[in-house]
Amino acid sequence: MKQMTGTCRPRAAKLTDVTQGSSQGQSVTVRGMVHALHHMGGITFLTLRGPKSVLQCVLDREIDLQEITEECAVEVTGVPRKEPRAPGGTELAVTALTVLSRPAAPLPVPISKRQLKLNLDTELSLRPVVLRSLRERAVFRIQEGLCRSFRETLHGLDFTEIHTPKIVHAGAEGGSNIFRLDYFGRKAFLAQSPQFYKQMMVGVYERVFETAPVFRAEKHSTTRHLNEYTSMDFEMGFIDSFEDVMAVETLFLQHAMELLASECASEAEALAIDLPDVSRIPCLRFDEAKELAAEKYHRPIRDPYDLEPEEEVNIGRYAKEELGSDFVFITHYPSKKRPFYAMDDPADPKFTLSFDLLFRGMEVTTGGQRIHDYQTQVDKMLSRGMDPGAFESYLMIHKAGMPPHGGLGIGLERLTARLCGLENVRYACLFPRDLSRLEP
Amino acid sequence: MKQMTGTCRPRAAKLTDVTQGSSQGQSVTVRGMVHALHHMGGITFLTLRGPKSVLQCVLDREIDLQEITEECAVEVTGVPRKEPRAPGGTELAVTALTVLSRPAAPLPVPISKRQLKLNLDTELSLRPVVLRSLRERAVFRIQEGLCRSFRETLHGLDFTEIHTPKIVHAGAEGGSNIFRLDYFGRKAFLAQSPQFYKQMMVGVYERVFETAPVFRAEKHSTTRHLNEYTSMDFEMGFIDSFEDVMAVETLFLQHAMELLASECASEAEALAIDLPDVSRIPCLRFDEAKELAAEKYHRPIRDPYDLEPEEEVNIGRYAKEELGSDFVFITHYPSKKRPFYAMDDPADPKFTLSFDLLFRGMEVTTGGQRIHDYQTQVDKMLSRGMDPGAFESYLMIHKAGMPPHGGLGIGLERLTARLCGLENVRYACLFPRDLSRLEP
Repeated sequence: MKQMTGTCRPRAAKLTDVTQGSSQGQSVTVRGMVHALHHMGGITFLTLRGPKSVLQCVLDREIDLQEITEECAVEVTGVPRKEPRAPGGTELAVTALTVLSRPAAPLPVPISKRQLKLNLDTELSLRPVVLRSLRERAVFRIQEGLCRSFRETLHGLDFTEIHTPKIVHAGAEGGSNIFRLDYFGRKAFLAQSPQFYKQMMVGVYERVFETAPVFRAEKHSTTRHLNEYTSMDFEMGFIDSFEDVMAVETLFLQHAMELLASECASEAEALAIDLPDVSRIPCLRFDEAKELAAEKYHRPIRDPYDLEPEEEVNIGRYAKEELGSDFVFITHYPSKKRPFYAMDDPADPKFTLSFDLLFRGMEVTTGGQRIHDYQTQVDKMLSRGMDPGAFESYLMIHKAGMPPHGGLGIGLERLTARLCGLENVRYACLFPRDLSRLEP
Repeated sequence: MKQMTGTCRPRAAKLTDVTQGSSQGQSVTVRGMVHALHHMGGITFLTLRGPKSVLQCVLDREIDLQEITEECAVEVTGVPRKEPRAPGGTELAVTALTVLSRPAAPLPVPISKRQLKLNLDTELSLRPVVLRSLRERAVFRIQEGLCRSFRETLHGLDFTEIHTPKIVHAGAEGGSNIFRLDYFGRKAFLAQSPQFYKQMMVGVYERVFETAPVFRAEKHSTTRHLNEYTSMDFEMGFIDSFEDVMAVETLFLQHAMELLASECASEAEALAIDLPDVSRIPCLRFDEAKELAAEKYHRPIRDPYDLEPEEEVNIGRYAKEELGSDFVFITHYPSKKRPFYAMDDPADPKFTLSFDLLFRGMEVTTGGQRIHDYQTQVDKMLSRGMDPGAFESYLMIHKAGMPPHGGLGIGLERLTARLCGLENVRYACLFPRDLSRLEP
């Protein structure tokens, strides 16, 4: 009888082992996709695409090229040798080639080109193929590094990962931007945030996090919004101040930039990413930041309760020019514009113990301290005309006792887009959802 | 101006440092929730609940106990000392206690009891509080370990994590168990699986994984089904056989059991978990397994094309009794019962190159090799009366060329439930969704 023992048959070598030169001079067999084919003076150069790198393969005249096209899956055998002009400094002198599968039609776009220069709509429609471009896929390796370093940072700080429902009976953020759903004849919604659930879990594990999709039925099309995105959320108990939350986010960013510098150097290079210095992140109060930016860039304040996108841009510019930082924490947002669970500042209850993090002029995080006292929470709901009875299962935790706590949510796609210098957040989402796009 | 530098103020010691005895004899300050209070002959024992452990605190007569109740958040200062009868072998002789917050009402259930013995419905309704019970929360630390070891295993094997949309234009699994949604006036669905997207991403990164919610509108209530669950999915290119996929799953299970044994020993003990031996996992063909179980347990085969739940139980029993394994791979499922993207066995196209993994008699994984050739895929769709035109963006990858590939999906809650010996999968989901339950 057959048994699995966890042994994976290493039929083929890893492409990165070859490009990193660890098998120089010995014959190796590797597998990959034919990314590009170039014929130059009787020699054929085949660029083999692996998961993280490409390998330049030089094909002998004896190898039959008739059957080979771009995006064939192939197995090649050859001897790696130093070649300074090849990507990674190594090329493979191929002695044998087997085609494992072949495409049915030529590619709709030449993905082996350095820049595709497609318009957004074409690019998104062709995403399943366009993502094979080295530049495109580099973005999502950066994104993977950001998400992994988020989890690593939090795991190292004794946070526990949780999985909370996305089909919910009430929205956490309120407002109209919530998707409705028929749930076996009952009205249900798609979660705008794991807010209620992560707070519930603070009572259980003290520190929790989740990286999961959230849904916002934004009825406008901007370069900053997605209707579905990945939210990196955490929530922590026993805080002394909402600054404890900001400190953990700073630690995450520090770890992320270190990880990207060491593990995603080639992707950062392909995208010409300038990894920001996050050793110190300046903090400005909401009011103060508004005024500083208005003064410096001569733009009058129109909405005293919120930051307009243009104001965020100007505050970002201010942070860069005056404070030398790509990031800036904006603290003490007006109570009016924050959700009902935000804790008001006892020193001035018109403001909250909350913050946003701006990165190069765009909000990438919202966080703050939450109300933990039952009566305080009920009173704030009543003062906003809300019915506490509709939030019975949420208020159960306040009634049962909660430590002082706070947390945040980071938009993974926005963070990725800012870091990679992408002007539209859709470019930082594999298969974005917007007003008009539901496919692929 | 204030700046964040990533320094977290360590006002309080970690509870685990105290329980593990690293601060014996020195005064420490710790924070936590009052899990239990017991008065015995003039001495008060306070059980302090931390994220991963509890600490027995002994309170002096001088400390005012009037204000202290269960589920107060407190800060206590004291000197740790050895006490064999205390959990972890250490207790804290408290010299000072500060209440940081207090509950508004007594708990609806006595969560400090070892066993709560609630009926399922009561337990789920009170989940936000019930999860504070040490036994209840142990389940989700095990779950965290499973999910983390899944990611660690795959990251170590050069898989890239992806995030794919949950609002989709077509279902991957077909059938009627799909949630419908109004998407700005268009018909949309909630993803039953990331199948199409992870296949698309095999063309990009060769090996990908995702741990994310999936949605199934199952219209029946069983102990095995959830309407929303966490699916741990991976997909890998350049396989020689679907057994390569099974080998990676075996590696994952081996890593998971090692991780749980070393990092979740106290949770495993609390739940009396017997970690299974996964050094070898037997494989049986679908037909063969059906017959072996039918014969041994005298239960005639009724449906030749699928495994009934009772048959899975019997095959699991057979695997345990005859093959000495809690797990068993069942391979070569009938083509009829597998989705349109499953690759048929060239040796006998009535069957597929696919598998399920049964764990103690319940399916916890479905996987297999997928069709990579464009024409083969189109033909199979047509033979099932499907319209290939409706799957244009999916078929784009087959047209553009795909390596031979396969993958699987693991139900995290089912795996957790089986491992923890929970008779209903709802117990292995923090806030389960079923026909009647949408809250909390």
